[in-house]
Amino acid sequence: MKLNYKVIHTEKQTKARLGKIIFTDKDGTTQTYETPMFMPVGTQATVKTLSPEQVKATHPGIILANTYHLWLRPTPEVIKEAGGLHEFMNWHGPILTDSGGYQVFSLAKNKKKDITEEGVHFKSEIDGRPLFLTPEKSIQIQNMLDSDIAMSFDECPPATADYAYLKNSIERTLRWAERGKKVHNNPQQNLFGIVQGGPYEDLRKFSAIKTVEMDFDGYAIGGVANDDESKDDMYKAVEFSTPYLPNDKVRYLMGVGEPVDLLESVIRGVDIFDCVSPTRLARHGNALVTGVRSTSQGPKENRLNLKNARFKHDFTPIGTTCDCYTCQNYTRAYLHHLMRCGEAFGATLLSIHNIRFLIHFCEQMREAIREDRLLEFRDEFLKN
Amino acid sequence: MKLNYKVIHTEKQTKARLGKIIFTDKDGTTQTYETPMFMPVGTQATVKTLSPEQVKATHPGIILANTYHLWLRPTPEVIKEAGGLHEFMNWHGPILTDSGGYQVFSLAKNKKKDITEEGVHFKSEIDGRPLFLTPEKSIQIQNMLDSDIAMSFDECPPATADYAYLKNSIERTLRWAERGKKVHNNPQQNLFGIVQGGPYEDLRKFSAIKTVEMDFDGYAIGGVANDDESKDDMYKAVEFSTPYLPNDKVRYLMGVGEPVDLLESVIRGVDIFDCVSPTRLARHGNALVTGVRSTSQGPKENRLNLKNARFKHDFTPIGTTCDCYTCQNYTRAYLHHLMRCGEAFGATLLSIHNIRFLIHFCEQMREAIREDRLLEFRDEFLKN
Repeated sequence: MKLNYKVIHTEKQTKARLGKIIFTDKDGTTQTYETPMFMPVGTQATVKTLSPEQVKATHPGIILANTYHLWLRPTPEVIKEAGGLHEFMNWHGPILTDSGGYQVFSLAKNKKKDITEEGVHFKSEIDGRPLFLTPEKSIQIQNMLDSDIAMSFDECPPATADYAYLKNSIERTLRWAERGKKVHNNPQQNLFGIVQGGPYEDLRKFSAIKTVEMDFDGYAIGGVANDDESKDDMYKAVEFSTPYLPNDKVRYLMGVGEPVDLLESVIRGVDIFDCVSPTRLARHGNALVTGVRSTSQGPKENRLNLKNARFKHDFTPIGTTCDCYTCQNYTRAYLHHLMRCGEAFGATLLSIHNIRFLIHFCEQMREAIREDRLLEFRDEFLKN
Repeated sequence: MKLNYKVIHTEKQTKARLGKIIFTDKDGTTQTYETPMFMPVGTQATVKTLSPEQVKATHPGIILANTYHLWLRPTPEVIKEAGGLHEFMNWHGPILTDSGGYQVFSLAKNKKKDITEEGVHFKSEIDGRPLFLTPEKSIQIQNMLDSDIAMSFDECPPATADYAYLKNSIERTLRWAERGKKVHNNPQQNLFGIVQGGPYEDLRKFSAIKTVEMDFDGYAIGGVANDDESKDDMYKAVEFSTPYLPNDKVRYLMGVGEPVDLLESVIRGVDIFDCVSPTRLARHGNALVTGVRSTSQGPKENRLNLKNARFKHDFTPIGTTCDCYTCQNYTRAYLHHLMRCGEAFGATLLSIHNIRFLIHFCEQMREAIREDRLLEFRDEFLKN
């Protein structure tokens, strides 16, 4: 499905955009989704522990799948034979596939890998066999998966990378983007470019301008770390990139899922996000909430761990104002019981809640942008 | 909900009964379910890996929950506080709870336990603390859980028990049934008695007659082993029990879930069944099927292990004529992928299929009874 992005309204006080992504299918039918948007992640062609219907009930727009994982299993050949990823996984909304780059650089971080101009040599996590991923290969795999949005294969530098390393890296990423674009061969699939450059203003500017010159269907901001210590760098990376991205193309901050980071990035002009955190937190018994403080009134707590004994007799829902299936039908006491027993349905229920929480948070941001009160929304959010 | 059972039709060639179970709620509303019926098991107040909606889509009647597990976690007090098991687990159809006896006798089989006339002393599987389960305690727990059907606490003798042991055991089970009935104190809950006696005709007869004299709301046949070597004993146990059970009460064969055993037991006059096998098989990647032979035309295969490499490129559903959600929407190749990756949704999809398979099998038996062709149905089934 070909993608168009339109800004409906730019917030008066910030760079935040209320927008819509319109997908047009071969037969002319369209699907429209508003931004800011949070995209749930279905790494291995399944949003962990959820049926497509359960995912759909959280009102998502696009969902993600991971090229690296699907390349190894079940292989792009199997998915192509199945009629593409949508058919294979029974998901008929839009799908974005990443390039596999992040996994090659991060999952294999303690293993020997060899980064050359041509691509990256590394070993399969599953069976140890040698693998070689190149910009061309990444795009060819994504073409076969037949996702709606493919990502360019970029180098994801380590968090410790210095200015000199990053400078070389963004130049290589530009050459890789060019190579990927050249072999891209799926007219129904949109291709996004990725801006790198760490927290450096000149590198981000250079990377953004050069990437935009290549004319992609959308632009991502990559290379932001997701730990508490790097939040300033994350916001800088966004702030230094968005001024050079075209107004009529969607902007995607990759791998970010904390509400405060969504908010700060939307303020700086980002439209869409993805993160594995809602489902990962769920599997460990954590529910996303707002406005909860510990009894000591210490630092704000934005998660509840349902395994905690204090929930054993708590017959309230996770969130009293939450409209998700979990909060409409189940108590904290039941979730506590399921998580204590290791029952899979506990992870399912918490995943539904956490995904819906982030999607609802985006809906709230959209309202605030529409009404030009995003800074007030931030004040309110930080106070709770 | 109070239970009534009515035979609609007794098959001409066998003792098989097409029946209906009518539950009447306090407010006079009724729920009616036909027998033969297979009941999915929700051991810890959840049918493993499934939402109540997913369970419901398999068209079950009654579901089970386990007293032993719920006694330990979350405790009957928590469930009572929640408003009973239906509210706690968001299941608004009928629920049957077992007595906990089977778990005490089987789960703790390699651990020290002390069976006295008063009850059974044993140690908690979770934290090792000493526990004491008596017939009164079992019923009191089930009263608190507020299931629709409670089971009497019976002694479940080991498979190796001889005639003398079983004779003593059925007498004790009768005394325990009496004690349980005396303390039963939940007017909306039905109480079933359990017939024991191994494969011995006189013991089954004695146990059945004496249990029926106590006048329960329904009768179970217990103490049948579920392994391939004991099938004759299972069928004997049924055959020697049903003649002494009243026609207007439902008959329940506990813990049996193989299609051939359902069929042979229905032929001998059993109405309802439960078993963990459909969900357990699912978690190991197995799907129930009929009519599959290995290429060598060797012994009949009634399961497919979806982990098997031969399914990698198999884009057909598990069952081409199956009407379950899984078969309607997913291929064997997708299930193979999910099971190979250890994705929870694979177990969910296979659980849905396997439960639906057994429920559909019961629907087929009901049709065959209605049309007086159950033996022909058996011939057809055994041929495939």
